[in-house]
Amino acid sequence: MTFRVPVQEQRFVLDQVVGIAELTNDLDIVDAVLEGAAQYAEGEVEPLNRVGDEVGAKWSPDGVTLPQGFHEAYRHFVEGGWMTISAPADAGGQGLPGVLGAAVMEDLNAANLAFALCPMLSMGAIEALEAHGSPEQKRDYLARIVSGEWPATMNLTEPQAGSDVGALKTRAEPNGDGSWRITGSKIYITYGEHDLADNIIHLVLARTPDAPVGTRGISLFLVPKVLPDGSRNDVRCASIEHKLGIHASPTCVMAYGDNGGATGWLIGPEHGGMRAMFTMMNNARLNVGLQGVGIAERATQRAVDYALGRVQSARAGGPSKDAVAIHEHPDVRRMLLRMRALTMGARALTYYAFGQVDRGQGGDAQASMRADVLTPLVKAWGTDVGCEVASLGIQVHGGMGYVEETGAAQYLRDARIAPIYEGTNGIQAADLVNRKLGLDGGLAFDGLIADIRAETDSPSLQALADAVEIAAATLRGAGHDDRLAGSYPFLTMTAVLSAGWLLERQSKAARGGTPFDQVKRAAAGYFMSVVVPEALGLAAGAEAGAELLYSVPAEALA
Amino acid sequence: MTFRVPVQEQRFVLDQVVGIAELTNDLDIVDAVLEGAAQYAEGEVEPLNRVGDEVGAKWSPDGVTLPQGFHEAYRHFVEGGWMTISAPADAGGQGLPGVLGAAVMEDLNAANLAFALCPMLSMGAIEALEAHGSPEQKRDYLARIVSGEWPATMNLTEPQAGSDVGALKTRAEPNGDGSWRITGSKIYITYGEHDLADNIIHLVLARTPDAPVGTRGISLFLVPKVLPDGSRNDVRCASIEHKLGIHASPTCVMAYGDNGGATGWLIGPEHGGMRAMFTMMNNARLNVGLQGVGIAERATQRAVDYALGRVQSARAGGPSKDAVAIHEHPDVRRMLLRMRALTMGARALTYYAFGQVDRGQGGDAQASMRADVLTPLVKAWGTDVGCEVASLGIQVHGGMGYVEETGAAQYLRDARIAPIYEGTNGIQAADLVNRKLGLDGGLAFDGLIADIRAETDSPSLQALADAVEIAAATLRGAGHDDRLAGSYPFLTMTAVLSAGWLLERQSKAARGGTPFDQVKRAAAGYFMSVVVPEALGLAAGAEAGAELLYSVPAEALA
Repeated sequence: MTFRVPVQEQRFVLDQVVGIAELTNDLDIVDAVLEGAAQYAEGEVEPLNRVGDEVGAKWSPDGVTLPQGFHEAYRHFVEGGWMTISAPADAGGQGLPGVLGAAVMEDLNAANLAFALCPMLSMGAIEALEAHGSPEQKRDYLARIVSGEWPATMNLTEPQAGSDVGALKTRAEPNGDGSWRITGSKIYITYGEHDLADNIIHLVLARTPDAPVGTRGISLFLVPKVLPDGSRNDVRCASIEHKLGIHASPTCVMAYGDNGGATGWLIGPEHGGMRAMFTMMNNARLNVGLQGVGIAERATQRAVDYALGRVQSARAGGPSKDAVAIHEHPDVRRMLLRMRALTMGARALTYYAFGQVDRGQGGDAQASMRADVLTPLVKAWGTDVGCEVASLGIQVHGGMGYVEETGAAQYLRDARIAPIYEGTNGIQAADLVNRKLGLDGGLAFDGLIADIRAETDSPSLQALADAVEIAAATLRGAGHDDRLAGSYPFLTMTAVLSAGWLLERQSKAARGGTPFDQVKRAAAGYFMSVVVPEALGLAAGAEAGAELLYSVPAEALA
Repeated sequence: MTFRVPVQEQRFVLDQVVGIAELTNDLDIVDAVLEGAAQYAEGEVEPLNRVGDEVGAKWSPDGVTLPQGFHEAYRHFVEGGWMTISAPADAGGQGLPGVLGAAVMEDLNAANLAFALCPMLSMGAIEALEAHGSPEQKRDYLARIVSGEWPATMNLTEPQAGSDVGALKTRAEPNGDGSWRITGSKIYITYGEHDLADNIIHLVLARTPDAPVGTRGISLFLVPKVLPDGSRNDVRCASIEHKLGIHASPTCVMAYGDNGGATGWLIGPEHGGMRAMFTMMNNARLNVGLQGVGIAERATQRAVDYALGRVQSARAGGPSKDAVAIHEHPDVRRMLLRMRALTMGARALTYYAFGQVDRGQGGDAQASMRADVLTPLVKAWGTDVGCEVASLGIQVHGGMGYVEETGAAQYLRDARIAPIYEGTNGIQAADLVNRKLGLDGGLAFDGLIADIRAETDSPSLQALADAVEIAAATLRGAGHDDRLAGSYPFLTMTAVLSAGWLLERQSKAARGGTPFDQVKRAAAGYFMSVVVPEALGLAAGAEAGAELLYSVPAEALA
C-alpha cells in the first residue's frame, strides 16, 4: 500500500483551476517543488504515520517527546527548505505562491496529519508576524520560523473561551522595559511543547490591564520558550490530551507564569489582537480544509488498493461464477468513485481559494474578497469531505477496515478533529451567513455565483445555483435565528456548487483518452449527476427557519 | 451525565407503532420488563462502558479475559432472566413478543455495546436451534442458551469467505457415531472465547465431504467449547483483533481441530446450513440495526446534557451580551434536534420491523414478508443513523468531543462496526434491490409504499413516495449493474420514507402539551421538513446507473 502523491493532479489543478502561470513565471520551479515534496512526503513522512499513531506524543514534567523518527524527518524538513516555499523573500522564504506551499502541505497532511500540524501552525504565525510584527521581531524571530528551525504555535483557547475567544482571561502586564509579563493558562495548544526543535515561538492572545471586555480588548504577544539570553521562559506544558486521533500531535495545556510570569512582546498595537488573530486564523482555516483533502486522498488510495486486491464473490449477472476483485462490484465501485470525486472537488475548491489569496496579496481586492467568501466553505466542507471519505474507506475494507492494523480506521480518527478546530464548522457556517453573505454589500458572494453561472454548461449546477440564490435571498432577509438555523446546509450547498464548477472546468480540459483524463471526466460526471442533486436536497433545511428548533425545551431532547 | 433509558418513548412506540396490545394480553408485564431492564442497564451495564473501552478484552493462550465488573454484570443478566424475555416457553423462555426483547437489547446497546454483543449473538442461535435443532439438541443446549448460562456464537466468516459465505472451507467429516469432526479456521467471531460463562456454544458453518460448491454445500454444526462428558473440545481462540471500538467485545480468530478435530453435531439437514444461517442472520440484522438506535440514543443524551451545561458566547441578535448555554445557539439546537429526530426515526422503524416478525411468527404471512422487506432498511439505515448521530455528538462537544475522557468519541468508534458486520450495508442494499424488491412478485414492497401513501398527510412524504416508486420501477427494469449501482441511495430513500411515516403517526398521537409530546411533534416536524427532502436529493443517485462507474479502470482511481 504505497502512498503516492498525486503530482499530475496537483499540477493539473494548479494550471486549470488556479492559473498558476499568472502567479509565477517559473513553472520549472513549480514542477521541482511538487516532485521534491512528493518524494519527501512519501519517503520520509508517511512511513512514520503508523508509529505516530501507535506510540504518540509522550508527556513528562520535563517536556513532550515525539516518537522515534519524527526528529530526523523534521530535521530534513527544515534542511530541505520545505517550510520556506511561499514565505516572503525578505524573511528568508522563496517567495513562491502560497498555493504552491499549500500543495506541499497537502502532501504532508496525506502522509501524516499529526506530523504536518507542526509546520501548519508556523504558517499562520509567519503571516501574522509578517503583517503585524515590528522590524526587530521580524529580524529576531521571523527568519527562524520561516526556516522551520523554531516552530510557532497559536495560543487562543482557554477552558471558558473556546468558540468565544473574547472570553479569554490570560493577563499581560507591562514590565516597563518594553516586554510584558504573561500569566494564565491555555488549552488545546497544538505542538505547544515538543522535542523537535531548540525553541518554540508561542503567539499568545492575552488581555492587558484595563482592556475593554470581549474581543476588542485582546492583544497578541510573542512568547518564546527560550528567551533571547538563552534562559528558559516561564512557560510549560502541564499535560497533553488523550485524543481520538492525531496521537503524535501533542495537544497541550500550557501554563504561562507559574513562577512569576512569562516574558512576552506585543505584536502589533495593544488591543489589536483580534486582527492579528484573524490573519493567523484565515490561513489556518484554509490549511485545515487542506487537511480534509490530504486525508481524503490517502484514504481513497488505500481503499482502491484494497479493492483491487481483495477477491470476493462473483459479479452479479456476470459471465462467470468465479469470485472477482471487489472493485468490480457496482456498489464498491460507487464508493471508490465517490471518494475520488469528493477528494478532487475538495482539492479544486481549496487550491482555488489559496490562489485567490495569492492574487489578493498581489493587489487584487476582488480576489481577496473572493478568498474571504471561500474560506468558510473550504474549512467546513473540506473537512466534512475528509470525514466522509475516510469513513467510506473503512467501509470498502469491510471487517478489515475496523481492525486498526489495516490503517484505514486511523484516517477517520485523524480526520475527525478537522471539523472542530480553528473554528468549528458551525462557526464557519455562521461566518458565511453573518459576514460573507453581506461582504461588499453582497457583491462578493453574488459575484461568485455569477461567475459560476457564466461558465457552467451543467443543468444540475444551474439548478443548484438557482437554489443557492433563493436560499441566499431568504437568509439575507431573515432574522438572526432563522439565518443561523439554515447556515450549515446553506454552506454545504454553496461549497458543492463551487467545487462542481471547478470540476466541470477540469473535465472540459481533460479531453484525452488517458486514464488521468478518464478519471477526471468520470469524477466530474459523478459529482454533477449525484453529489450536486444531493446538495439540492439540502435547500429545505437551509430555508426551514428556527421556529421548530425552539418549539421544545432543550432539556426535553435528552 | 447519567444515562436514562427512554422508557416512556419505548412504551409509546410499542403502543403507537407496534400495536403491542395485539401481541400480548399482559401489558403490566410489558411495563415491568421495560422498567426492570432500564434499571439493570442504567445501574449495572452502563457503568462498565468506560472500563470496557479502556481495558478491553485480553487474550492469552489460556483464553480471553473480560474487564473487571463484566462477570458480575453478566451473572446478574442471567439471574435477572433478561435473556429469556422473548424466548419460547418450551425452552425456558417467557414467550413474550420479540419486540419486547428488542427493547431490552436497545437498553444494553445504549449502555454498553461491547457487553450487549454477548447476548445478541445468543439470540440468533436460539432462533436457529428452535427452528432447526433436533429434540436432543434442544433438550441439551437450548434451555441453557436461553437462560444465558451458555452463551452462543455464530461462526461464518473465514479469511477468504466474508461477504461470500459460500467460499468457506471449514470441513466436517462424520465420526460414525452421529457426531462430526470439524477442522478449520474462522475469523471475526464475536465473543468466540471469554470468561463470562462455563461453556460457549459455537454454531459453525462447514462443508461436508463431497458437498456441492458454494452456499448449497454448507451445513451448520453445534460445537460446544465443553463437551457433554465435561472434557474440553478441540477449539481455541488463536488471537483477538485490535479494533477501532467495541474493545471489550472479543473478536476472535477461532481454530477448530488443531489437535485432530473438534466434535460437533449437525443442526438440521446436511447442506441445509444456509437456511439455518439466514434464520440467525435475519435476527442478527435487526439486532444490529438496533445497535444504531442504542448508540444514537446514548450519544444524543450526552450531547444534550453537555449543551445544557456548556456556556459559550452570547446569542446572536439576542437581548443580552451575556454568554448562554450552547443549546441556545441555533446551529447547536439544529444538531440536537437532528440527533433526536434520527434516533426516534430509527427506533420506530426498528421496533416496527420486530413487531412484524412477531406477527409473522403468529402466522401472519403478510407481516412476515413485510419484515423481510424491512430488514435491510433497519440494518443499513439504522446503523448509518448510529454513526451520523455519534459523529454529531462529537461535534456538539467541540474540542471536548475529540478528547477520549469525555466519552463522546467512543460512541463513534463503537458505532462504526455496525455498518460492516452481519452483511455490510452494501450487501443490505443488494438484498433490497435483488430480492426484496421482487418478493411476492413485488407486492411485498409495493404494499409497504401503499400503506404509507394511505396513511400519510404529509406532502413531503408523498413526494418521497413518488420518488421511491419511480426509482423502484427504474431499478426493477434495470440490468444487474445499474440496479446495484443505485441500490444504496435507493435503500436510504426507502428507509427515510418508512421511518417518516411512523414518526408522523406518532406525532398525530402526541397532541398534548407535555415536553414529551412537544419533542415528538418537533422531531417528526424536523424529519418531514429537512430529512425527507434530503432523501429526495438521493433519487438521482438511485437512478444514475452504472455506466459512469465502469467508464474508468479502477486502478486509475487510486
